[in-house]
Amino acid sequence: MNIKPLGDKVVIKPLDQEEKTKSGIVLPDTAKEKPQQGEIIAVGSGRILENGQKIPLEVKVGDKVIFSKYAGTDIKIEEQDYLILSERDIHAII
Amino acid sequence: MNIKPLGDKVVIKPLDQEEKTKSGIVLPDTAKEKPQQGEIIAVGSGRILENGQKIPLEVKVGDKVIFSKYAGTDIKIEEQDYLILSERDIHAII
Amino acid sequence: MNIKPLGDKVVIKPLDQEEKTKSGIVLPDTAKEKPQQGEIIAVGSGRILENGQKIPLEVKVGDKVIFSKYAGTDIKIEEQDYLILSERDIHAII
Amino acid sequence: MNIKPLGDKVVIKPLDQEEKTKSGIVLPDTAKEKPQQGEIIAVGSGRILENGQKIPLEVKVGDKVIFSKYAGTDIKIEEQDYLILSERDIHAII
Amino acid sequence: MNIKPLGDKVVIKPLDQEEKTKSGIVLPDTAKEKPQQGEIIAVGSGRILENGQKIPLEVKVGDKVIFSKYAGTDIKIEEQDYLILSERDIHAII
Amino acid sequence: MNIKPLGDKVVIKPLDQEEKTKSGIVLPDTAKEKPQQGEIIAVGSGRILENGQKIPLEVKVGDKVIFSKYAGTDIKIEEQDYLILSERDIHAII
Amino acid sequence: MNIKPLGDKVVIKPLDQEEKTKSGIVLPDTAKEKPQQGEIIAVGSGRILENGQKIPLEVKVGDKVIFSKYAGTDIKIEEQDYLILSERDIHAII
Repeated sequence: MNIKPLGDKVVIKPLDQEEKTKSGIVLPDTAKEKPQQGEIIAVGSGRILENGQKIPLEVKVGDKVIFSKYAGTDIKIEEQDYLILSERDIHAII
Repeated sequence: MNIKPLGDKVVIKPLDQEEKTKSGIVLPDTAKEKPQQGEIIAVGSGRILENGQKIPLEVKVGDKVIFSKYAGTDIKIEEQDYLILSERDIHAII
Repeated sequence: MNIKPLGDKVVIKPLDQEEKTKSGIVLPDTAKEKPQQGEIIAVGSGRILENGQKIPLEVKVGDKVIFSKYAGTDIKIEEQDYLILSERDIHAII
Repeated sequence: MNIKPLGDKVVIKPLDQEEKTKSGIVLPDTAKEKPQQGEIIAVGSGRILENGQKIPLEVKVGDKVIFSKYAGTDIKIEEQDYLILSERDIHAII
Repeated sequence: MNIKPLGDKVVIKPLDQEEKTKSGIVLPDTAKEKPQQGEIIAVGSGRILENGQKIPLEVKVGDKVIFSKYAGTDIKIEEQDYLILSERDIHAII
Repeated sequence: MNIKPLGDKVVIKPLDQEEKTKSGIVLPDTAKEKPQQGEIIAVGSGRILENGQKIPLEVKVGDKVIFSKYAGTDIKIEEQDYLILSERDIHAII
Repeated sequence: MNIKPLGDKVVIKPLDQEEKTKSGIVLPDTAKEKPQQGEIIAVGSGRILENGQKIPLEVKVGDKVIFSKYAGTDIKIEEQDYLILSERDIHAII
């Protein structure tokens, strides 16, 4: 897949049920922020600080993450669902 | 076309149906941020940081991008629709 | 006309119908930000950054621009309508 | 009059009808920001930036200005109406 | 009175009717920001900028000031009413 | 008591009626910000500025203060009520 | 457990009733911010300031803390409930 997120954005592929079970982590449907699990597919080149310095992202391609679904943008590439969101909407690497 | 966006703004020509299909990316109508595909037609000279440094845009003329329609301004030049929006409303280069 | 905008403000004379047609750009009445065309009549001396540096404006007297009508202030000088607004409310030079 | 505005604040005496007519500028009552004309009577010593630098005001005593009435505070000194407002609420020197 | 305001805060004693009349300044009850006159009784040691520099207040004990009542906190010390508010809610020294 | 507030937070023990009367300061129940009196029991190590500098708090253990109740968090330790709040919600040392 | 919070985020295991009683601190159910007690299980690598400096967290694994439940995200790992939240939502180490 050829997609390059800008700045601090990343592309995430949501994990399917089997992969979720393997991680041993359950994210309750009723949680107030709708957390989800996914795999990082592509990352932006980083966030630019007010002093001009570029800070690379903490996550890298292949990382499994927990993220908040709210801020993301849904896209579909060749029948597969993905999300684009900012790294600040990612809670943790699992 | 002779149009020069200011600062971190860009001019985008929305992709027509044929071009969208070619990219293999589908943006669902029901998505919460109304993502769209388009081609960069013109770019501003960059964003100025609080230390006075000018940061050039990450996108360049000819890039195909996914962007959020909400913040943009619709204009029509010689019967063709365009949008002017800030680079921060662009999610990714495709 | 003798008017000196402060900071990053500019004075704009809205283009009349004939001039608009000449530019080949049409700004739909239904657009969400009410874009307009106009000519820069006067410019402020610039915006001051938090490091004390003064950034001169990107637009200059005589530039034709597309701007968002919302933030501006209407004034009338010798029967002619003008607007005063900040450079950040200008989208592009045409 | 003995009044010393703080920071970036100024004291303005609204222009009466005769002086307004002389300037040739008309500010429509129906404008969304209620612009007004006035004369600067007193100015603060300036605005302090986050780097500690003090930026003196662009306006000086005696300047005729166009300003937005909304942010100001009405005061009355010896039967004459004045306003105290921040320089950022002043649009232009006329 | 032994009270030490923190940061950029000050303690103000509202002026009584006689003192107000002496200053020649009238603050209309109908004004949108409810301006008031008062005397500075105590001042904080200053505001700290993001570069670590401490900026002392512009007002000092004994200054008569015009201030906006809204942001203040009412306190009563030995039957006398006072207000605690930030220097940024003070408009001018009179 | 063994409690260590983080950053610019402090732990406050509200003053009882006898101690309040001694200070001579009365905080009206009807005041818009519900001011209260209390004693500082524990303080955080300070606030970190954007330049990385740590600014120690102005208040210290044992100080009697006036604070705004709104932002605080109520806790109870061995039947005694305390509040945890940020130093910026403290108005003055009394 | 293998989970790595990003930036200034932490993973917290809520304390059970027995551990809460041991600390001697009671957090009333009716409190406006729903404070809770918990133990830090994992911490992010720190918060990045606008000057590019990384500030390590004040809390470390094993610390017992009081935190505000509101901003957190609930997750469940092997039948045990955890929360992920930012260090700024932690009030104190107990």
